[in-house]
Amino acid sequence: MRACWRRCPARWGGERDTVTVVGKLVVVGVGLIGGSLALALREAGAVASVVGIGRSRANLDDAKACGIVDRAYRIDDDWRAELGDADIVLIAAPVAQFASLFAAVAPHLGAATVVTDAGSSKQDVIAAARAALGERFAQFVPAHPIAGSERSGAAAADASLYRGRSVIITPAAETSASAVARVESMWRATGANVSRLDAGAHDRIFAAVSHLPHILAHTLVADLASRPNADALFAQAGPGFRDFTRIAASSPEMWRDVALGNRDALLAEIGAFSEALARITRSIAAGDGDALEALFARSRDARNRLQRDSMLRVRDNE
Amino acid sequence: MRACWRRCPARWGGERDTVTVVGKLVVVGVGLIGGSLALALREAGAVASVVGIGRSRANLDDAKACGIVDRAYRIDDDWRAELGDADIVLIAAPVAQFASLFAAVAPHLGAATVVTDAGSSKQDVIAAARAALGERFAQFVPAHPIAGSERSGAAAADASLYRGRSVIITPAAETSASAVARVESMWRATGANVSRLDAGAHDRIFAAVSHLPHILAHTLVADLASRPNADALFAQAGPGFRDFTRIAASSPEMWRDVALGNRDALLAEIGAFSEALARITRSIAAGDGDALEALFARSRDARNRLQRDSMLRVRDNE
Repeated sequence: MRACWRRCPARWGGERDTVTVVGKLVVVGVGLIGGSLALALREAGAVASVVGIGRSRANLDDAKACGIVDRAYRIDDDWRAELGDADIVLIAAPVAQFASLFAAVAPHLGAATVVTDAGSSKQDVIAAARAALGERFAQFVPAHPIAGSERSGAAAADASLYRGRSVIITPAAETSASAVARVESMWRATGANVSRLDAGAHDRIFAAVSHLPHILAHTLVADLASRPNADALFAQAGPGFRDFTRIAASSPEMWRDVALGNRDALLAEIGAFSEALARITRSIAAGDGDALEALFARSRDARNRLQRDSMLRVRDNE
Repeated sequence: MRACWRRCPARWGGERDTVTVVGKLVVVGVGLIGGSLALALREAGAVASVVGIGRSRANLDDAKACGIVDRAYRIDDDWRAELGDADIVLIAAPVAQFASLFAAVAPHLGAATVVTDAGSSKQDVIAAARAALGERFAQFVPAHPIAGSERSGAAAADASLYRGRSVIITPAAETSASAVARVESMWRATGANVSRLDAGAHDRIFAAVSHLPHILAHTLVADLASRPNADALFAQAGPGFRDFTRIAASSPEMWRDVALGNRDALLAEIGAFSEALARITRSIAAGDGDALEALFARSRDARNRLQRDSMLRVRDNE
């Protein structure tokens, strides 16, 4: 197995004065996202038991060894009996698998079992849940934790991943208020800040501030890597290039699904970006130094405000 | 004055067994780049005296207070008498000022004075030096230290800025070999790794791995900042967005000059990037998940190799 990023430091039932907010949690997809949620709840004493479902036996063994799950099943095993008495089922797999996973869990959910997810796009996930869950759709709470890492897999799980980070809930009109409240309590127990947003607004915002930057970083790195002088180029890449392209190291499968899951909003953002790039290109070609300096000053000022605001948020959370 | 980033910890003439590689250094433009070079040489005991020339009195006062310079002159003062006995004159101003700075120093240089620069583009700098320096052109050594920060000004100077970093020398056919050797010795005394490259190759490589990423980051931040819902967008920006856009916080004046100074190579890179973005956009629009996953896997693998190689380089330098 791989070394655990951070082994669960205090198993549940520890010394701290804590409240169990989830009795039994089933995590479908015990990677960085699902594994870190389970570890964080365990460290907070906020979960009684965790069951993990996954595609790879090696990753499930990591999840057990790192103290993430009590029991683990391969996706092809019969784990349906674990669903009836589960309080929360978290779907934390790449989004393209959601439709079949919702269909697999739907017939076995308990009357009080809440289903939630951690997908980066929300309208397509809501549509898949509505189609597969049928009358159980009101028990589904669409959610998006804004955290991640270029690492992946159970061994990368980190109990502090969500501390001070944002988790966005995008309820549908039918979503049960009590189900939303339970999912919000669960995420708050990890140290995250929970807020709500309309699913359409969510998808448009994240197309702009997350999905588009990932596409740009992937495009740049793949284009340079395809050139005959790729080694000479990368040999001169400085810290600015490394920061700019860090997000290009993230999971190909996950980002394939994000790009297709939020396709319309992402295509609109690529279009807006391409137009903005064409404008700045015209200024460069025309030698218009005043226009360039004005544009660079606007982006510097906006970037400095962003840095200041995010540092204030971090401080406020401490 | 602003607080010094790191005050010069050991002034020259200290306890260490060091060799003075530069007697008198004149720094024209005492910002992050020129100030950090002076501080690094002082810390290494490798310079006897430093004279600073700058546009702003406040910044020159910082340079004195932070132990960077012995004497300071405003650009409009008469500082020409400092040039005749200078060993090295470093031009570390935005590139658009180079032509007039070369013209200002040319008549006052000593026979043994070497002129060098720290500009991010090299062919345009060489052309400006050739035009302004006349018979002194052989004493000019074009150089590009690959280091920087989103901070700027003398107070941001840092004696360790160049340690383990790359400095590229791009000599012209006429450049004096002994002048190159002196500039290389100076940069090595800061802890930098010095290498040589053809100026045209330099400009094409840095258009791809530095200038283009800056333009992309500036374009994205300026476009989002111009929207009516800019606050809502930036409020959801996570650590990936912050890393991707960190370089958009750098100096507008410097980047205006880089974009125009390396215009042809930069326009070629913007063109290549735009074509690559159009290809990935077609895959997204067509729902071609296999093509997307293959492209994302290529960029992830290239980015992981880059990370591994740069960590090896850092380790080799320690």
